[in-house]
Amino acid sequence: MFASAEIGHRIDRATYKAEVPALRAALLEAQYALLKSADRAIVILINGVDGAGRSETVNTLNAWMDPRHIRTEAFDAMTDEDRRRPELWRFWQVLPPKGHIGILFGSWYTDPILARVEGRDSRDHFAHRLERIRQFERMLTAEGVVLVKFWFHLSYRAAKARLKALSSDPRTAWRIGPREKAHLKRYDDFIEASDEALRKTSLGEAPWIVIEGSDEAYRNLTAGRHLLSVLRHSKASVPPPSPVPASALHTGLADDLTVLRALDYSRQLSRERYDRLLERWQGRLNLLSRDPRMRQRALVVVFEGMDAAGKGSTIRRLTGAWDARYYRVVPVAAPNENERAQPYLWRFWRYIPPHGRAVIFDRSWYGRVLVERVEGFCTESDWMRAYGEINAYEEELAEAGVIIVKFWLAITPEEQLRRFRERETTPHKQFKITPEDWRNREKWPAYERAVQDMVDRTSTRVAPWHIVASDDKLWSRIEVLRTLCRRIEQVLRRG
Amino acid sequence: MFASAEIGHRIDRATYKAEVPALRAALLEAQYALLKSADRAIVILINGVDGAGRSETVNTLNAWMDPRHIRTEAFDAMTDEDRRRPELWRFWQVLPPKGHIGILFGSWYTDPILARVEGRDSRDHFAHRLERIRQFERMLTAEGVVLVKFWFHLSYRAAKARLKALSSDPRTAWRIGPREKAHLKRYDDFIEASDEALRKTSLGEAPWIVIEGSDEAYRNLTAGRHLLSVLRHSKASVPPPSPVPASALHTGLADDLTVLRALDYSRQLSRERYDRLLERWQGRLNLLSRDPRMRQRALVVVFEGMDAAGKGSTIRRLTGAWDARYYRVVPVAAPNENERAQPYLWRFWRYIPPHGRAVIFDRSWYGRVLVERVEGFCTESDWMRAYGEINAYEEELAEAGVIIVKFWLAITPEEQLRRFRERETTPHKQFKITPEDWRNREKWPAYERAVQDMVDRTSTRVAPWHIVASDDKLWSRIEVLRTLCRRIEQVLRRG
Repeated sequence: MFASAEIGHRIDRATYKAEVPALRAALLEAQYALLKSADRAIVILINGVDGAGRSETVNTLNAWMDPRHIRTEAFDAMTDEDRRRPELWRFWQVLPPKGHIGILFGSWYTDPILARVEGRDSRDHFAHRLERIRQFERMLTAEGVVLVKFWFHLSYRAAKARLKALSSDPRTAWRIGPREKAHLKRYDDFIEASDEALRKTSLGEAPWIVIEGSDEAYRNLTAGRHLLSVLRHSKASVPPPSPVPASALHTGLADDLTVLRALDYSRQLSRERYDRLLERWQGRLNLLSRDPRMRQRALVVVFEGMDAAGKGSTIRRLTGAWDARYYRVVPVAAPNENERAQPYLWRFWRYIPPHGRAVIFDRSWYGRVLVERVEGFCTESDWMRAYGEINAYEEELAEAGVIIVKFWLAITPEEQLRRFRERETTPHKQFKITPEDWRNREKWPAYERAVQDMVDRTSTRVAPWHIVASDDKLWSRIEVLRTLCRRIEQVLRRG
Repeated sequence: MFASAEIGHRIDRATYKAEVPALRAALLEAQYALLKSADRAIVILINGVDGAGRSETVNTLNAWMDPRHIRTEAFDAMTDEDRRRPELWRFWQVLPPKGHIGILFGSWYTDPILARVEGRDSRDHFAHRLERIRQFERMLTAEGVVLVKFWFHLSYRAAKARLKALSSDPRTAWRIGPREKAHLKRYDDFIEASDEALRKTSLGEAPWIVIEGSDEAYRNLTAGRHLLSVLRHSKASVPPPSPVPASALHTGLADDLTVLRALDYSRQLSRERYDRLLERWQGRLNLLSRDPRMRQRALVVVFEGMDAAGKGSTIRRLTGAWDARYYRVVPVAAPNENERAQPYLWRFWRYIPPHGRAVIFDRSWYGRVLVERVEGFCTESDWMRAYGEINAYEEELAEAGVIIVKFWLAITPEEQLRRFRERETTPHKQFKITPEDWRNREKWPAYERAVQDMVDRTSTRVAPWHIVASDDKLWSRIEVLRTLCRRIEQVLRRG
């Protein structure tokens, strides 16, 4: 991957000086055009060999454009603090919204490559991390992010000369520590791992651009020209229709729809028995929240269900068992303007708890394959690829120690009708029923289809769906508490 | 992934009998429509739990359609013989051409899942194999193959009952051996691995369809209906334009084009020195072909270069060193009709040698990013994704023990002109020069751009490009022989 970046490219000072003014003007103009169209975000990754001028290029790009609309963030190998969350979490936090530019100095490639070079990761695990990156980048691209992946390269000879030059100049000697020297010693291992990383992540939709880093003028001009070219010619990605459309996945017969219909909705609990069981399971849930093993774990509980299925009241039975500092409840409504300018998973990533904490989602990322599908808020190919994206997302959470427990509170259409009417006639419940609830109710069959697909495609060993018959609220709440406790215990046992 | 396949679906005999005739007629009609349009191939994967009726379903589908246009192949865990070639090789051999249907009973999922269950593969390596499958399926889909991935499932209880029923009936007892019994014992491990496989490979463009297998009528009807639905509604995939078009990857300046221009074309050898070196390096190459370590290795040598760069005469210097049983030379021209009905890598996969053998490609799969790109025979997004596909392909070969050595024989435009003229005036060389050669020559700058991109994006540690200045044929031949020997020795040393 580095063959043409070891040739010794140079640009003389006069050419550089003559070209820069026009390039700067063009970059600024392209940046403002991006801001105006706001149809895509640009994320620039700055990676490469020590001493190849990454830091200087970041400064130059900021100087050449309007830095108010550029967010620059630096990333290094992961710290222990970083490890309290899933690996990609810190990058999600700094994604620029559509219309803006983000510069990541160091990126999601930095830690995997260093871990491989330093022998912290096996070959296979390195490949696994690269694969996760590939999925991540594919998803970003499909969601309207254009990735500009710059790799600044130096040959071994050039890297060595550069290190020597920096350390012998008192003004720059501080930049060369034992770390830089150690890296040079492992130059070949570093290139080996980098070659694999670039090779496996050079997607058609997010290709690498390798730039020789030894000459400052060449480096700046080349990076600037490439960026200009991408700003001018890139478009927001339009995912193609799937060759196997959703209509081909169903036989159109009612016997397809069984997950919800196969439930026994007649189960009930008496108030007396409920009170007794509630105390028992809330006590157990409280103990679990204080279990020492939970300090290396985070808990994410997801509630989905038709309108009036009892999500809110069930959630209160969970939180009633916990210290207020332990948990956070996130109610999910339609995305706002800021959220619509980001990939759909962005707003959920923000709430992923660190180790030792819990978050309950009252509705969740499954909106993508439920309401957004049924209402046509996204395209068919968007929600069809979402199953895989969500599975990958949940797997990443699980690998980072997050216990994910997902509940579908299932009610019959008859019970929903009863509850709607009750809400209309009970003064303190009237705020809970709107014309939209009645409209949604008319789409019951479409939602039933969507729930079936959701369970079929995202109920996994990593994060299974628990479908709870909820026509009887008391039985349902206890079933949720019991399932939650058992699931947590099961994961803790496995270690 | 299996939640709704443990519910106990049944279809009664009367319904089944009433429905089958219409379904058969519709399937036949859809099969002939596919044959007529010939715009895509259908590959049906049959996987699942022992005893879930996979074999019966294969027979039923063949009985319901016209089996002359269906190719059915069975695959099991890999044998030692299979391991003499890359893992996916055996599947490439049976891909149906466009218009046809292939049924794979057992598939590229069978060995990875069994290897994981039997503890032959680590978690990470299993993930790595699944990732390879995902890339493979993505590529097939982009190349016009529609995948129908059936998973036939049984709950543990149903699997156990089925095993018992089969072994107690003398007509079927032969089907239950120690292997089937061992599988049942590991049912949970099998489901764990299968869940991961399905989760990670449920692509939007190639989703899994899980079917409960305990009731024959339900199983057949459901599989038949799904297949009909896919035959009717699927389309050949149209890859979308890349959000970063090729034009955005180049600054449009000549200093981009350096790989070929940076060469020293003046190097020469005298005839006398050439003869001496030729003998030495051919001898060494001969010894290497008989090295015992090469029995666990295959050799693939690729030659590319502009017209008249000397590929043919160089290849003869290689083969001159070898026993005729050891090697095969594959000259690559434009694809014929059969080859155009397959993914573009198909015709090259066919020639991949088993361990202990060598193949020399006179032109190769790089045609995709050279002539097909320059002449517009494929779309921009086709050749842009091809870099990644080729890297993945070569990595797979390398992991299977294939040593890949790639040469670009580089000549200057002036030298090409001289050779063209010589061919025109030398009677026994006139057949080697055609009007097309002159036309290609006019596209020299476009080819130079394509070569630069090819080297930048596919010269990897796994399979680096060797760019050999070839204005002097004698120097070039020796350089190729020397490079080839050294590369083989390097790989053998690493082991």
